[in-house]
Amino acid sequence: MNFPALKNTRFLDALALRPIDRTPVWMMRQAGRYLPEYKATRADAGDFLALCKNTDLACEVALQPLRRFELDASILFSDILTIPDAMGLGLYFETGEGPKFTRTVRNMQQVEALESFKTTDALGYVTDAVTAIRHALGGSVPLIGFSGSPWTLATYMIEGGSSRDFRHAKTMMYQQPEVLNALLDRLSDQVAEYLIAQVDAGAQALQIFDSWGGALSHADYVTFSLNPMRKILDKLRASCPGTPVIMFTKGGGLWLEEQLSAQPDALGIDWTVKLGQAKQLVGSRCALQGNLDPMILLGDRDNIKLATTRMLDDYYQGCSEQGLSKTGLIANLGHGITQWTNPDNAKVFIETVNQYAI
Amino acid sequence: MNFPALKNTRFLDALALRPIDRTPVWMMRQAGRYLPEYKATRADAGDFLALCKNTDLACEVALQPLRRFELDASILFSDILTIPDAMGLGLYFETGEGPKFTRTVRNMQQVEALESFKTTDALGYVTDAVTAIRHALGGSVPLIGFSGSPWTLATYMIEGGSSRDFRHAKTMMYQQPEVLNALLDRLSDQVAEYLIAQVDAGAQALQIFDSWGGALSHADYVTFSLNPMRKILDKLRASCPGTPVIMFTKGGGLWLEEQLSAQPDALGIDWTVKLGQAKQLVGSRCALQGNLDPMILLGDRDNIKLATTRMLDDYYQGCSEQGLSKTGLIANLGHGITQWTNPDNAKVFIETVNQYAI
Repeated sequence: MNFPALKNTRFLDALALRPIDRTPVWMMRQAGRYLPEYKATRADAGDFLALCKNTDLACEVALQPLRRFELDASILFSDILTIPDAMGLGLYFETGEGPKFTRTVRNMQQVEALESFKTTDALGYVTDAVTAIRHALGGSVPLIGFSGSPWTLATYMIEGGSSRDFRHAKTMMYQQPEVLNALLDRLSDQVAEYLIAQVDAGAQALQIFDSWGGALSHADYVTFSLNPMRKILDKLRASCPGTPVIMFTKGGGLWLEEQLSAQPDALGIDWTVKLGQAKQLVGSRCALQGNLDPMILLGDRDNIKLATTRMLDDYYQGCSEQGLSKTGLIANLGHGITQWTNPDNAKVFIETVNQYAI
Repeated sequence: MNFPALKNTRFLDALALRPIDRTPVWMMRQAGRYLPEYKATRADAGDFLALCKNTDLACEVALQPLRRFELDASILFSDILTIPDAMGLGLYFETGEGPKFTRTVRNMQQVEALESFKTTDALGYVTDAVTAIRHALGGSVPLIGFSGSPWTLATYMIEGGSSRDFRHAKTMMYQQPEVLNALLDRLSDQVAEYLIAQVDAGAQALQIFDSWGGALSHADYVTFSLNPMRKILDKLRASCPGTPVIMFTKGGGLWLEEQLSAQPDALGIDWTVKLGQAKQLVGSRCALQGNLDPMILLGDRDNIKLATTRMLDDYYQGCSEQGLSKTGLIANLGHGITQWTNPDNAKVFIETVNQYAI
């Protein structure tokens, strides 16, 4: 596809634990509603889904944060629920209510009725966006592709939308585990195919968002969330060797050792985890990504600097204490940036990372 | 007050790590909507708050689960938000929306305007309920009093109700920490006075529910949630020595070591924590309470038995491995029982604990 050569390799270097000059930084949901230019483009598109499906506009919003901030990675602009939508569940968004599906999946028949799809056919708008963004970046920074984890996607498909307690998904787990496993198997295959298609289209790294793995018990996390992700990582290693994968289970800080067994290139961690302790645990077995509470960006700017510096100190002191080289951290928030953030506050976070001498 | 002598000391024995014949068991929110008899009494009272304020009916619902199940403790029937209500915020419940306040607390003036109260005056219905339940129990099992933690109460007072992201509370934390600290100081004093009044009225053990401590970073948890609880525990040790205190931070499984520094008699843990690992960590420094996912009770009964047995095995194997005596566990759920639970499923959980040979 004749992509231009990559100029900034800091993000990929940190992921591979190679030497870096400073800590790479990006923000989950960096193309989002906290940016006025994003809101304008979204209004042009009509709505969120229309924006995802419009290659030019999806490309435009992916580039917006890079024009404002000195970031070291870009990420595909899309939604994790494109997969269940392509499987036939009818995704829509109600204002202020989050995502919804017109159909839910609650028994084996409904699992079996899910449509199979080839990403480049059913979700061509995703792979088109990947290619367009990669070209538009002109090699300035690498492009991350992504997917939701099978368990996370399954919760939306079973509940029919967002949930606080995952009542229906857990009822299925404890009443008809064979139905849940069948659904997770289908999703594991589909997610792997989806991510491989993104790499084929130009993605240079991948992230799996396991947003709801943290709602499970230790044992159920391993069975129903980690193991399906493990299958995907195995397939990715076979099909796209050399493309690093970040695995992020929000609320999964108690289970980092278990997560390592899936051999991700990096583990995403949220703000409940002490970064230095996480480094102590993973050593040089993988990189780490995180982990400032996004709500810190709603506060005082001196405190943003302080909290960011403390986070970096915590990580690099961990490196020193273990005699490890000072690399392997991708500075990020512990979850997506919120819509109420002043972009200038996000800038303080990014500049603090940029200026921090490792 | 001439309370009858306690016949079943299993719960208090486990809390003190004294020998026990079998594992004591109770369920958070055991007097609740999953019981048809509770719904009937609540309908008689009119609404939830009226039920809390009616001594006879509050006593009746506290006793209902003990008539159905072989439980080893009872708990005061009340709500954690009685304190902010007594401070003048105007608590009300909207159907399907959870608790709301007519006024919020978002600046120093509003903190200073909060009313001070003496529990036996402003919340006499709570202490009356404690005394009535204690008498009605006739010494069959001990009675637990409770309160929300200062941080947890503060979130409701700042947000004006429930929240998913604690946007306003965290904005205060990161913009005006002095306001948050002033609010937490007021709440720490008030919670301590409230719990001491419950002990004076007949409570034989106490639990502090820190429902939202797990939303914080490690450092902020210590500053804004754990330290206020520490102050309360210090006061309780001085004023009611011998009354054991259970401290439960939902989502706080990463910080058990820090929690121990507040010297609780027991730590409550949720289902994300491996009970055996927690026992490994706390050793004989305190008891543990938990930790079955309440959603397991929505599932298959054989699986309820299996999961409960595994939980108990995990704990007692931890005791054996460390050469510790087999005590110190209060079997419970990792959070309140949900309204969708079939009472017969709860019975399977309780009977499995009752029949488990330690």
